[in-house]
Amino acid sequence: MPSEFEIIRRYFDRPARNAVLGVGDDAALLQPRAGAEIAVSTDLLLEGRHFSAGADPRTLGHKALAVNLSDMAAMGATPRWATLALSMPGADEEWIEAFAAGLFALAERFGVDLVGGDTVRGARSICICILGEVPAGQALRRSGARPGDDVWVSGELGGAALALARPGIAEVQRRLTEPEPRVALGERLRGRASAAIDVSDGFAQDLGHLLERSGCGALVHYDLLPKCAAFARMALPELERRCVLAGGDDYELVFTAPQEARSALAALARETGPALSRVGCIRDSAPALTVVDAQGREIAVGRGYDHFSA
Amino acid sequence: MPSEFEIIRRYFDRPARNAVLGVGDDAALLQPRAGAEIAVSTDLLLEGRHFSAGADPRTLGHKALAVNLSDMAAMGATPRWATLALSMPGADEEWIEAFAAGLFALAERFGVDLVGGDTVRGARSICICILGEVPAGQALRRSGARPGDDVWVSGELGGAALALARPGIAEVQRRLTEPEPRVALGERLRGRASAAIDVSDGFAQDLGHLLERSGCGALVHYDLLPKCAAFARMALPELERRCVLAGGDDYELVFTAPQEARSALAALARETGPALSRVGCIRDSAPALTVVDAQGREIAVGRGYDHFSA
Repeated sequence: MPSEFEIIRRYFDRPARNAVLGVGDDAALLQPRAGAEIAVSTDLLLEGRHFSAGADPRTLGHKALAVNLSDMAAMGATPRWATLALSMPGADEEWIEAFAAGLFALAERFGVDLVGGDTVRGARSICICILGEVPAGQALRRSGARPGDDVWVSGELGGAALALARPGIAEVQRRLTEPEPRVALGERLRGRASAAIDVSDGFAQDLGHLLERSGCGALVHYDLLPKCAAFARMALPELERRCVLAGGDDYELVFTAPQEARSALAALARETGPALSRVGCIRDSAPALTVVDAQGREIAVGRGYDHFSA
Repeated sequence: MPSEFEIIRRYFDRPARNAVLGVGDDAALLQPRAGAEIAVSTDLLLEGRHFSAGADPRTLGHKALAVNLSDMAAMGATPRWATLALSMPGADEEWIEAFAAGLFALAERFGVDLVGGDTVRGARSICICILGEVPAGQALRRSGARPGDDVWVSGELGGAALALARPGIAEVQRRLTEPEPRVALGERLRGRASAAIDVSDGFAQDLGHLLERSGCGALVHYDLLPKCAAFARMALPELERRCVLAGGDDYELVFTAPQEARSALAALARETGPALSRVGCIRDSAPALTVVDAQGREIAVGRGYDHFSA
């Protein structure tokens, strides 16, 4: 069986294009751009909890990095470097090769260097720490929403949760297994959005975090929420609501912006995609989310994903 | 049972003194000092592999951070920020409180802010990513050793391995459970040492990594190696050799320096501690380590810790 050091060299020691020093020393060395702040975030994925034992290793490599890139997108940061701590029951080279292929394909697409890591034997888990850069003072925080701001959502909601609830639907499967982080959108929202968060635990819960940090409430119109197209033919309104409002793993951005930004945001959506939907507004009220239907009746908002209580 | 968010707030959301933005957003924001490079490293510790199920959570919190601080020390970097990804079978608040106490006590002593993390339910594991700063171009790499340089070791070797091999010896137990990272020494070695590494997998193996990266060999005199005092009364030379040469977890620094630095290093040891021992020299040969006894006879060097093959 190859040793830890051979595995690192063979699959994870790729030249770091944007680092002073990459894999292979006690630490990597990075040179931030002058005037930039470093954005840093980490996510831990466990087999049996965040992915199944038989999960395809290539898409798993994609997703493990994608969820971290999504955190950079939600800050308006440009992802640049990542570290990977990987535990595996053994040195299954076929698995490692496919996992590395999925991870590096996405990393290269976004110009992210893998600069360090750790590999140990144990139950399979993946812990990535992502580092990005953002011009000082321009990061998109959760705390910046103000009464009167619009609430916007990128792309479509509910697809990943639908793929979990109804495994047979091919068109939504990729939303769950290979989410596309909204990095370019996040960068373009700097100076335009007042607050942002990504939808990892569910729209209602994640917007709730933003409201709590901002200290204000929101009114959202359910009919305006962008929904995965598959729901239209299914005519299962309860399932749809659950997936759209409380389903996690969509990795879209939910953000707020002053009303003056409407035309700039519409132009941005036309230029760069994904679609941007204006779904409600921020109110001068307690930090709670109210969702109403077309008749103005309040819709009960389910709970999102809690990593301990779920 | 408290939710993930309550746990984070209660135990891990402490004010970040040295960060623009700490725990509680999609990412933390850090402002590096002008001219600094960022050093980044990560380590993953698994229950049943790196620590036992009954391990004291306070010392575990200490050790999990200490091994990462040691990587900063080996680079000559000043540790400043850390992220923590924690998986636990459940939200055992007593365990979490003690773990956080051990981790934060060490973090505060070294001025390190915990700026982000992730908590999930699963088999217990601890993944820390550490970030530090080092003036551009001054980091201590593994690759800088040159023929004629001296080989130095800080503190004492073998204590942690002895604690594992003979659990009853109180004086070495702390070497294993609460190692002291050599951060101040690493900072002071900038501009003096030509290469450095920390002893995590064993003296012979870790010096071997340094030699491989530097492309030269080393001759080390076993009698000059600083050994944990407990060995002297035990008179178990085989055990001593195994612990001193191949035992991991000491977290001392092994470094090389030109001969001209001898008096400066002696002064440094007197000023700041720990003791510094000159144990051999770098040779213009293949990157291999030769260890000899007082009679000049070669001593077989055992293998160190391999995370997959061990």
